[in-house]
Amino acid sequence: MAANSIPAELLDHHRASAVLLSDLSKIRKICGFTGSRALLVIRAESQHLLTDPRYAAQADGEVHNAEVIIGEGSFCSVLHKAQLLRGGSVLFESDHLTVAESAEWQEAFPAVTWLPGKQLLSGFMACKTNAEVGLMRKAQAITEAVFEQILDIIRPGQTEREIAAEIVYAHLCRGAERMAFDPIVASGPRSALPHARPTDRPLQEHETVLLDFGCVYQGYASDMTRIVALGTPADEVYQVHEVVYEAQSRALAAATAHMSASALDAVARRVITKAGFGSGFTHSLGHGIGLEVHEWPRVSKQAKSSLPPGATITIEPGVYLAGKFGIRIEDTVVLRERGCERLGSLARQLFIV
Amino acid sequence: MAANSIPAELLDHHRASAVLLSDLSKIRKICGFTGSRALLVIRAESQHLLTDPRYAAQADGEVHNAEVIIGEGSFCSVLHKAQLLRGGSVLFESDHLTVAESAEWQEAFPAVTWLPGKQLLSGFMACKTNAEVGLMRKAQAITEAVFEQILDIIRPGQTEREIAAEIVYAHLCRGAERMAFDPIVASGPRSALPHARPTDRPLQEHETVLLDFGCVYQGYASDMTRIVALGTPADEVYQVHEVVYEAQSRALAAATAHMSASALDAVARRVITKAGFGSGFTHSLGHGIGLEVHEWPRVSKQAKSSLPPGATITIEPGVYLAGKFGIRIEDTVVLRERGCERLGSLARQLFIV
Repeated sequence: MAANSIPAELLDHHRASAVLLSDLSKIRKICGFTGSRALLVIRAESQHLLTDPRYAAQADGEVHNAEVIIGEGSFCSVLHKAQLLRGGSVLFESDHLTVAESAEWQEAFPAVTWLPGKQLLSGFMACKTNAEVGLMRKAQAITEAVFEQILDIIRPGQTEREIAAEIVYAHLCRGAERMAFDPIVASGPRSALPHARPTDRPLQEHETVLLDFGCVYQGYASDMTRIVALGTPADEVYQVHEVVYEAQSRALAAATAHMSASALDAVARRVITKAGFGSGFTHSLGHGIGLEVHEWPRVSKQAKSSLPPGATITIEPGVYLAGKFGIRIEDTVVLRERGCERLGSLARQLFIV
Repeated sequence: MAANSIPAELLDHHRASAVLLSDLSKIRKICGFTGSRALLVIRAESQHLLTDPRYAAQADGEVHNAEVIIGEGSFCSVLHKAQLLRGGSVLFESDHLTVAESAEWQEAFPAVTWLPGKQLLSGFMACKTNAEVGLMRKAQAITEAVFEQILDIIRPGQTEREIAAEIVYAHLCRGAERMAFDPIVASGPRSALPHARPTDRPLQEHETVLLDFGCVYQGYASDMTRIVALGTPADEVYQVHEVVYEAQSRALAAATAHMSASALDAVARRVITKAGFGSGFTHSLGHGIGLEVHEWPRVSKQAKSSLPPGATITIEPGVYLAGKFGIRIEDTVVLRERGCERLGSLARQLFIV
């Protein structure tokens, strides 16, 4: 579905006379605007991008497929002045607009019938164009180069926070706009907490460090996890890493468009469960990624959706042994009609420094 | 208003039998929880913090003034199982809950009368305790130390992005959790764009660079802007800097609790207008800051509120001359019964390196 076929499809499908999009990622993908405040109004005959005077010049340079309307104050009052919504049925993002915003719209446009829509355009957002995949490969390349740089410097005695600072700095120096999320640097028993934040804990010899980080390049995110051991680790670390590696390998081999998300989760989960670590795999296998670091589709046990061609998802099985250590291996792939392609090429091994 | 008097006040004021708080900053200030997913249920007889299994151990260690409830799935279903909302009037954050979330709540609890509330607890959030001001001073101290470090290295030929990377790295090395927002490093004519993003533009001799950055320390934000000239700048730069400096000085001298926010904005705006640059001061004077980098109260022409004692706000007049340069000077202050105190001590001058 190309960006310029969106309006007709959406309007038809919901029998709406107009659509209000407030989610900035959707707006960016449809019309190119990258500012921090905007509303896109889609009508059968025209599209209108609303923003404020701070972004006048930027909108002028960036926006395609839409007429730019610059206004002060609430979008509600700007749109009221522009007289673009005279009545009919108007679809809005009910999982994005707040109750207060919705009340304001209803009051300002009493002649409109408001249609709440959830997960609007999630398929369109999930399916990446070649240009989008190219930007995601670039984000991934930066992240992999940073990982190799970190391998050269990570040593016992450094703190988790020091390593996190180096990770951020290296990404920015290599052209990332920003981090996609705060890096996870979790050492020793702390790596058994899937959402650990870096602390002042110094890294110890022979223990493992879980490194999970990604950046944003021209709007698009990378997200990768690897395990580094600071000298030969315990046998159990090798054993669990081997299981998680095998789970990820199977999932990478199985992943393809049109497969159900829960079936893909099951491929990895089966390997881990069979090895006796099923209760340690406490999260879902992966998630969509693109302009957002977490987007539709989820790849989980409960996920009901089928995976669309062109979708970019993470594949990240993990096993967490409380009080001991955690192992996760994560890569991002793009789903094709037959199989998938990893967006990077870094080895998935246990790295020993 | 102490955190433990919140429940009674809120319930009384809105004649509600319970309150649902979904904004994580409010939850953090009331009961100490710092995780990324939570809901706080306030009833006359008890408070309950809902989160999921990922945060079980963390909630156990952090939460005070509330009973912790750990559950899988939506908070709606967790709360349904806990049987804490049997009916009555329940106040919720209508400027935080989405329309879809609200619909889910209404369906799950048909016996409840839902009361939408906007800007709930904004006064409570604005008024900082001494402990909170202490953390904000620490965040500010890190930011000022970083500024001095940047003064030592900033030179013509470096790019805006290189300087931004150094700013981030220096903050993280000095103990910041993260940046409060992406640093603004805007050089030469780009500094006339109040929301410029760092580019690969190399800094030029004799031009000015606008540096606007801040970090987060134990949850609390700093936010500061200074102008650096790379060698003697044009006379007009001195002239405009002098005007903005004077506008900020007057505002700092006038700022006090109980004053109206618009009157404080007017103090600075009058100086700039009188000097003939009124049309170049295109934004409001400042904003509340704390657990969020932008919070209530706004300090603008239109703001109707009076400034409460203990509120921490930025004071940041600016003048932007399109195609030439922009000058902004920004500091954070805490408002007292008589006057205000700056949270830092860095000179507000034009820095020439």
